[in-house]
Amino acid sequence: MRFTNISPPFLKILSLGGSGFVTSNMFVYETPKDIIIVDCGIGFPDEEMLGIDLLLPDTTYLNDKIQKIRAIFLTHGHEDHIGGLPFILPQFSANIPIFASKLTAGLAQEKLAEFSLKTKINLINPNEFLRIGDFQIESIRITHSIPDSLNFLIHTPVGDIYHASDFKFDWTPIDNVYPEVGKIALAGQKGILCLVSDCLRSEKEGYTPSESSITESFEREMNTCSGKFIVTTFSSNISRIQQAIDVAQKHNRKVCFLGLSMEKSVFIAQRLGFLKIPHQIILKEKHLKNYPPSKLCLIVAGSQAQVGSALYKIANNENKHTQITDGDKVVFSSEYIPGNENNIRSLIDTLSKKGAVVCYRDILEDLHVSGHASQNDLLLMIALTQPNFLTPIGGTYRHMKQFENLCLKFGYKKNQIFLPDTGQALFFNQKAQPSLLPKIPLRHVLVDGLGVGDVGHAVLRDRKVLSEEGIVVAVIPIEQNTQELLSEPEIISRGFVYIKESKNLIKKAQNEIKKTLLNKKGKIKNYRFLRKEIESRLEKLFFEVTNRRPMVLTFILEV
Amino acid sequence: MRFTNISPPFLKILSLGGSGFVTSNMFVYETPKDIIIVDCGIGFPDEEMLGIDLLLPDTTYLNDKIQKIRAIFLTHGHEDHIGGLPFILPQFSANIPIFASKLTAGLAQEKLAEFSLKTKINLINPNEFLRIGDFQIESIRITHSIPDSLNFLIHTPVGDIYHASDFKFDWTPIDNVYPEVGKIALAGQKGILCLVSDCLRSEKEGYTPSESSITESFEREMNTCSGKFIVTTFSSNISRIQQAIDVAQKHNRKVCFLGLSMEKSVFIAQRLGFLKIPHQIILKEKHLKNYPPSKLCLIVAGSQAQVGSALYKIANNENKHTQITDGDKVVFSSEYIPGNENNIRSLIDTLSKKGAVVCYRDILEDLHVSGHASQNDLLLMIALTQPNFLTPIGGTYRHMKQFENLCLKFGYKKNQIFLPDTGQALFFNQKAQPSLLPKIPLRHVLVDGLGVGDVGHAVLRDRKVLSEEGIVVAVIPIEQNTQELLSEPEIISRGFVYIKESKNLIKKAQNEIKKTLLNKKGKIKNYRFLRKEIESRLEKLFFEVTNRRPMVLTFILEV
Repeated sequence: MRFTNISPPFLKILSLGGSGFVTSNMFVYETPKDIIIVDCGIGFPDEEMLGIDLLLPDTTYLNDKIQKIRAIFLTHGHEDHIGGLPFILPQFSANIPIFASKLTAGLAQEKLAEFSLKTKINLINPNEFLRIGDFQIESIRITHSIPDSLNFLIHTPVGDIYHASDFKFDWTPIDNVYPEVGKIALAGQKGILCLVSDCLRSEKEGYTPSESSITESFEREMNTCSGKFIVTTFSSNISRIQQAIDVAQKHNRKVCFLGLSMEKSVFIAQRLGFLKIPHQIILKEKHLKNYPPSKLCLIVAGSQAQVGSALYKIANNENKHTQITDGDKVVFSSEYIPGNENNIRSLIDTLSKKGAVVCYRDILEDLHVSGHASQNDLLLMIALTQPNFLTPIGGTYRHMKQFENLCLKFGYKKNQIFLPDTGQALFFNQKAQPSLLPKIPLRHVLVDGLGVGDVGHAVLRDRKVLSEEGIVVAVIPIEQNTQELLSEPEIISRGFVYIKESKNLIKKAQNEIKKTLLNKKGKIKNYRFLRKEIESRLEKLFFEVTNRRPMVLTFILEV
Repeated sequence: MRFTNISPPFLKILSLGGSGFVTSNMFVYETPKDIIIVDCGIGFPDEEMLGIDLLLPDTTYLNDKIQKIRAIFLTHGHEDHIGGLPFILPQFSANIPIFASKLTAGLAQEKLAEFSLKTKINLINPNEFLRIGDFQIESIRITHSIPDSLNFLIHTPVGDIYHASDFKFDWTPIDNVYPEVGKIALAGQKGILCLVSDCLRSEKEGYTPSESSITESFEREMNTCSGKFIVTTFSSNISRIQQAIDVAQKHNRKVCFLGLSMEKSVFIAQRLGFLKIPHQIILKEKHLKNYPPSKLCLIVAGSQAQVGSALYKIANNENKHTQITDGDKVVFSSEYIPGNENNIRSLIDTLSKKGAVVCYRDILEDLHVSGHASQNDLLLMIALTQPNFLTPIGGTYRHMKQFENLCLKFGYKKNQIFLPDTGQALFFNQKAQPSLLPKIPLRHVLVDGLGVGDVGHAVLRDRKVLSEEGIVVAVIPIEQNTQELLSEPEIISRGFVYIKESKNLIKKAQNEIKKTLLNKKGKIKNYRFLRKEIESRLEKLFFEVTNRRPMVLTFILEV
């Protein structure tokens, strides 16, 4: 296929996950007649998004362009890159092909199956050159904290784009699959219009250490462990799991996987050949008690201290097959995801109290390495790709800013680097001249239970008030002819003050209602006004007495 | 006074703030006839304590011992050591003397004045030997992140206790007031029964750097700042404020203090001679616009990104006298207090977007130093005091555990180190033999608005549900004779789903109520049972449709 367009060619690169956001990755590459999408991830709610389970990219922009979408490409198997598929695919035409590497496809397929979706994911063959509409896509093997990760070289009518999502240059990866640095260099030699690059770790100097540096730390910690050796890490961190298995095998310990997400990801990775586990080493949870602690290695989900996770249960004596005993060692081989720090540290306290020796980031720094490019990895990527223009992705504004600083140090000019705001597309015209387009509105699509998008700011604002101040409900029955109070107003509070201690307060509230109604009988014209008046009087009363502002709901019942 | 007791002497050391807790410090030293208290601080709620403003130590234990309390000693002027006074003093006899150093007394006096309390705080004179009941108390000057900090050497009938609350050994303190290390060594030579020691930073190797190491960092950052130089730090960090002033003066920048807490603490520290500020350097907020940015240094409260704080307002264009412009530099000279990380990082994003160069912990590590002893400071303290026994305070269990590990490395035996659980007193009998007493119940006393202790677990549990799932209120009027529905049940939700989108759901809920009542007319005996039945049916309905579990409140009105 040749580049034949009626309208002059252009290229739009738009992040729907909200550029300036770490998770919910979804990138649109658009020409006048075609669109391809890279990744389709979920995001994680911040503390203000009370009760929200997860976030989705906002695909409103695509609503009138569904017919243009030619394919979806997945870079790697992390939730924030594939987890949105089951929610978003149903909005697209059924036959949009999805492409991914073997492990990524396996994990995505599983995710779709959970939602009873049967879309088949196509495997990307190495060195394959996919021609799709206006685009030609080459995949480049890259290293990250999950095996089988890809970057994409996207040939477009206005120039070549290098899409370097989550990566680091790991020269001693656990699976011996190396970054295809030759391919990147070659692409750079041929000329790359724009590098779209991971920037999450742009604040950190030097290179990010290799995954394999962890093996030694595991060795050291297992050597000095007389009880159970318990490792917790992200379930997706297949290399880390392999390392724990290898070290356990060397030390003659049986391995047991705990936690649904852990078991699932081990199952898929093993089936697809990405985890090598000697059969005889694996132990079922229920057989744990048949072995002395010194012969056990537990690989456990819950490194973020999630309530109900496998590690949380073990720490709180809620696992019926195993518990913490003196001499056990718990190794946190993971980051503290922002927002989880307090929970994680409190779990460490609990585990310590139970008698475990706990190894964690604050006392030992060599138990986890990031999967993201530090400053030198980024500089190497820039040196290899030699792009005319650059734009950072997968980080918030401060990471983007540091990425910019790095490029400036490397000799780039400010007008070669683009830090798009949320909803801003990077646009290349037919002469490959770049500009940022005006912002389109992008919101977080909130998923709460089964509801997608049915919770918005109003609901969250209410939840915020409810969470901090509670609610008071007053039911006021009024005789509709005389407009007199029929019986004592009924008042109930939740999350406000102890009912027991608030009796006096409720009495006051009832009196306030009576006082309000006293002179009104026969004169009430608008019950909505009356309700508002009572609510504002009660709000005032509660604030005066308690200095709190509970939500006040009033029902006036005309009988 | 001599030690003359009828019952054999003993000593109880009990933390009411909850040992294993960093804040709300309050320690009881008790003999058969006397009690002295060290510190009376507030605590900070964790994320689960929705809507709670602050925590207080639980003084229930003292209720029947008020007459034994002889004095309160304050170690230093931080909130978590003095902030509880206005709440707790009114529970004690009016004439219990309080002792503190000059700055601590000044800050505590201000705190009491805010609550219209007039209790006079006594100044501790250096080298004074206070004889109070069974106790004799010597104060030792020590360095911390606030000037005029003290340790206490407490002579008791069973032996000497060294109370080493928050400290580090700073040999180049900004105010040139050095730790009285000779006094400590002398006490150690004479024999110390027990060291009660800060352990918050026991996870960190080496010595904690001196406060003065920050001056150089400020210099470097101001040298490369073309716009406003904005420093944010804890308002209590008087030395840090002095450093910023000194560097600003050198660079010919005017200094302006922003934020109520900052202004207050600067005012007190200056009045008492702990801050030296050349008069002509100070600028009022409203005069900021009269000077070019390059001539300004702003010292600003809000380093924890508190909503409504001075820094937050500047970042969000809510300060009418100044705002962020290109070239401004914001220096975070403070820690990220656990739980605030996300808010702080998001404030950094906002400031960066506005054009400021932001210097923060993740990219520059020399902008803040801790005020707490690292491992080597702790070892030095142990070497100086040579105690028979040790017990860590001011940290959670994992810090206590690391403190224990440190003592073990130093040659102490496990039975010389005590890690009391919350509510456990360390007890020394007349032969100075130690043991841990059975736990007494200690709870966090929650302060919410004007209410102290009127919010407990039930209220917090409700707030949790409300915050995540919202509430649905149903009002059902029933004719009392026929027991028929008088009118359509009224249903309102808050924090649940968009009202607009939930119309269908509310219809379903109304039908569910009608269905429940259909066969019941004339047969309803117990309205409470009916209410429970309706509530559980609605809960089921909402969960089926939305996978959420809002709180359901039902009012049945018999008319």
